Amino acid sequence: MNEFFLEKANKEKPFIFHKMIKVKCEKNLFSQGDKITLDLGNHYVGYFSFVICRHDIYIDAPVELEFKFFENKRDLYDNFENYHGSLCKSWLQRENIFIDNPGKVCLPRRYACRYITIEVKNTPRTAVISDFSFDSVSSADILKLPRIDIPDNTFKRIDEIAVNTLKNCMQFVFEDGPKRDRRLWLGDLRLEALTSYYTLRADNLVRRCLYFFAAGDTNKYGFVPSFVYTYPNFFRGEWDLLDYSLLFVVTVCDYFEHTGDIETIKNLLNICKLQLDSSEKLLDDKGIISCPYTDMTPFIDWCEGLEKNTALHGVYLYALDKFTVLLEKINDSDTEKYKGLLNHGRICARKELFDEKEGIFLNSRDNFQKNVHSQVWMILGGVLEADEAQKVLLSSIYSDDFLSPKTPYMQHYVCEAMIKSGLYKKAFDYIRSFWGKMADEGADTFYEIYSPDDPELSPYGDRMINSMCHAWSCTPAYFIRKYNEHKYFHEN
Amino acid sequence: MNEFFLEKANKEKPFIFHKMIKVKCEKNLFSQGDKITLDLGNHYVGYFSFVICRHDIYIDAPVELEFKFFENKRDLYDNFENYHGSLCKSWLQRENIFIDNPGKVCLPRRYACRYITIEVKNTPRTAVISDFSFDSVSSADILKLPRIDIPDNTFKRIDEIAVNTLKNCMQFVFEDGPKRDRRLWLGDLRLEALTSYYTLRADNLVRRCLYFFAAGDTNKYGFVPSFVYTYPNFFRGEWDLLDYSLLFVVTVCDYFEHTGDIETIKNLLNICKLQLDSSEKLLDDKGIISCPYTDMTPFIDWCEGLEKNTALHGVYLYALDKFTVLLEKINDSDTEKYKGLLNHGRICARKELFDEKEGIFLNSRDNFQKNVHSQVWMILGGVLEADEAQKVLLSSIYSDDFLSPKTPYMQHYVCEAMIKSGLYKKAFDYIRSFWGKMADEGADTFYEIYSPDDPELSPYGDRMINSMCHAWSCTPAYFIRKYNEHKYFHEN
Repeated sequence: MNEFFLEKANKEKPFIFHKMIKVKCEKNLFSQGDKITLDLGNHYVGYFSFVICRHDIYIDAPVELEFKFFENKRDLYDNFENYHGSLCKSWLQRENIFIDNPGKVCLPRRYACRYITIEVKNTPRTAVISDFSFDSVSSADILKLPRIDIPDNTFKRIDEIAVNTLKNCMQFVFEDGPKRDRRLWLGDLRLEALTSYYTLRADNLVRRCLYFFAAGDTNKYGFVPSFVYTYPNFFRGEWDLLDYSLLFVVTVCDYFEHTGDIETIKNLLNICKLQLDSSEKLLDDKGIISCPYTDMTPFIDWCEGLEKNTALHGVYLYALDKFTVLLEKINDSDTEKYKGLLNHGRICARKELFDEKEGIFLNSRDNFQKNVHSQVWMILGGVLEADEAQKVLLSSIYSDDFLSPKTPYMQHYVCEAMIKSGLYKKAFDYIRSFWGKMADEGADTFYEIYSPDDPELSPYGDRMINSMCHAWSCTPAYFIRKYNEHKYFHEN
Repeated sequence: MNEFFLEKANKEKPFIFHKMIKVKCEKNLFSQGDKITLDLGNHYVGYFSFVICRHDIYIDAPVELEFKFFENKRDLYDNFENYHGSLCKSWLQRENIFIDNPGKVCLPRRYACRYITIEVKNTPRTAVISDFSFDSVSSADILKLPRIDIPDNTFKRIDEIAVNTLKNCMQFVFEDGPKRDRRLWLGDLRLEALTSYYTLRADNLVRRCLYFFAAGDTNKYGFVPSFVYTYPNFFRGEWDLLDYSLLFVVTVCDYFEHTGDIETIKNLLNICKLQLDSSEKLLDDKGIISCPYTDMTPFIDWCEGLEKNTALHGVYLYALDKFTVLLEKINDSDTEKYKGLLNHGRICARKELFDEKEGIFLNSRDNFQKNVHSQVWMILGGVLEADEAQKVLLSSIYSDDFLSPKTPYMQHYVCEAMIKSGLYKKAFDYIRSFWGKMADEGADTFYEIYSPDDPELSPYGDRMINSMCHAWSCTPAYFIRKYNEHKYFHEN
């Protein structure tokens, strides 16, 4: 643990904004067995309270109430008892409480929800329960959100939902998902930070989070953690992901591009170099990155059976690309070294990973598996020129022969690759059809995982545990706001 | 509600003494499904806390723990799911909690227990749980307990358990049972106060409780409530018991006898008179009290099918007896009036309720039911001289033909009647065999209800809900301490 960086992170603890939601409820007399559903009207993160009091006479025994919290309407019909996923069942948001005395009752934990069900498990008599309140919290300052005119109503709604997603994930750190694990993850942070520059401008929070990762120290191979715990004590995440470590470099580069904060860059520059230098050591004799560590496999996507070598090499090149731009701007003496690595890495990629006959990235390292992920990351790594990139994308993304992205996280990079290749309209059509479908289904926030054709999809074996407000899904607001007035918006 | 009396009650809020019990536990690493039982070493009332922390790595999901609290060892094997009693199931002491973060965890409510079971319902990883502490509370100042030498080991142990019972029921008021309803009941108060004068000397708490009943106002028939709620707001109990209202008078008389506090007596005298005057109105044409109010039946005992008219008349005479002594001491001008009522009431009782041929109290008003309760209360009402009283007691208490007392509350009055009749040794044998049996079974506190022949006995249809530390069971300490050096102790 690096105390210098930790102190820098700790001293920037953000202010938390509170907004009290008064929840309407038709009913206020409750008998044993009664069950109601409250609707907050939107997805929020925060604390729930109510007032319980006597009706005509005192309640002379504890009132036992069961609460369940649901992020969206469909989940309302879930039966927690049937949960069979791989993650711990205790993530399902539930409380069973006994109330001895009339008065105000505040439930003990923080919840992420739009809907709350209350079941009266036991009460000796009719109880009056009222004043349902949800004290919603976020470190997002919504006054910072630029008001922009989005003529297209679908994109307007997608932007709203995306900003809400980001807002609800913004707490003392950028959380990945406020329902479930509330940790600071690098892959999520990169996308939250990127979106923040165009929306809620939480530059200080980005800086704080970068310092948390720096405080986590690099592992024996030289890489920063993929996640850290920050509350109640700082603790380095216990498993690392190679692509996430590379995205640390990208997040630092983005941060500089949008803030110009040279002091922070100077503090973090050596860690960035170490990520790339440690990666260079993993290049095989053909110049392709290959991860030999079983305790540090890349993430890329929650996609079963995915072969990840090509995509990982793309992430490496993507980081190098961003980094050389940064180094050039700050006149760093190592600029040429990293430029050399980037060029060499691109050349090797073209040679080793691209199947010239098929015209796509397809190779023995990935067991000749056809997947969208390889194409996207190679394009983002700058291995192809725009015209070739367009062809590759168009032949893979819409083809059933290719393993397709499963998370909105990976879908972001699909869109980024489209835009990089000049496929603006395709990118926005893609956003409209992917995120727009969640909006059509009534989402108030974007999900951790979404596949319109497979509504029960979960990386954890049970959809109930999925996070329905997930940081890495917030990037449509970035695309919409960055390209809203772009001349290419309606082209291609 | 009488504000004058309420203010007097409220201003005497007692100091609460805390004693922290550090609970030993062999185990401190816990995995999913683990279950342990903690033993506090004695019965206590208070608050439970522990510390949960990471083992080797962070616990990255909430830890769900279920706690159950048991007053004695036998209850440990109870399955709450099978509960089928008439009282609300929520009285069974249980918590189900989710812990998001490592640190100290304090359970939310007050519990009455010796044993605590903890079951790890869900944890993603091994958790370290330690520092189990029970912050026990009581308003009893144990330094006030007179140290006396009790040569008989059984009585020594019975006295200890009785004092512990009283201590654990002494909180902001004299509670009837700290596990379940924690209200201030008159029948219980009378016995707690009486025992207190010989043990923990909580005179101020007795006064406070008397004022609470006075604050509750009398009902439309002129009677004080049988119980009151005192927290978080004062509220009059919603059903009344005629014998309990009469015991208000007795409790006031006892209080004056042991404190000489004339100011309080003056404040409460009119309410006492009103109890007796309102009872006088209920005398039938033969001079026997008869309760015509369906909303105010007497309690006497939890004994199924018990006919209560004779016993109720005994309680009326008992109250008159105590009251005339008080009035005489303070030279009250109504002394003769109440003496006259007492004498008349006794003469009528002998004539109307005693069966001269059978030599016991047996009469048409009680459908010629043979029960111990009638005999005991007639003797306490002073209807018989000692020699006749002895015969009546000896022929009824040990006979299977008589309905017998079920609660330690009623057993107290059996012993009181024996002592009043001069059956000192019988009384202490009775204590030894009734309360002593609870002690032999391992009781740390005396129970709400106890029948050695019927261990499943419950007034509520399920033993699980019974209170195992119940105020009205504490009186052996009164008997033992009052008569410990009495010359008659080993006679008869």
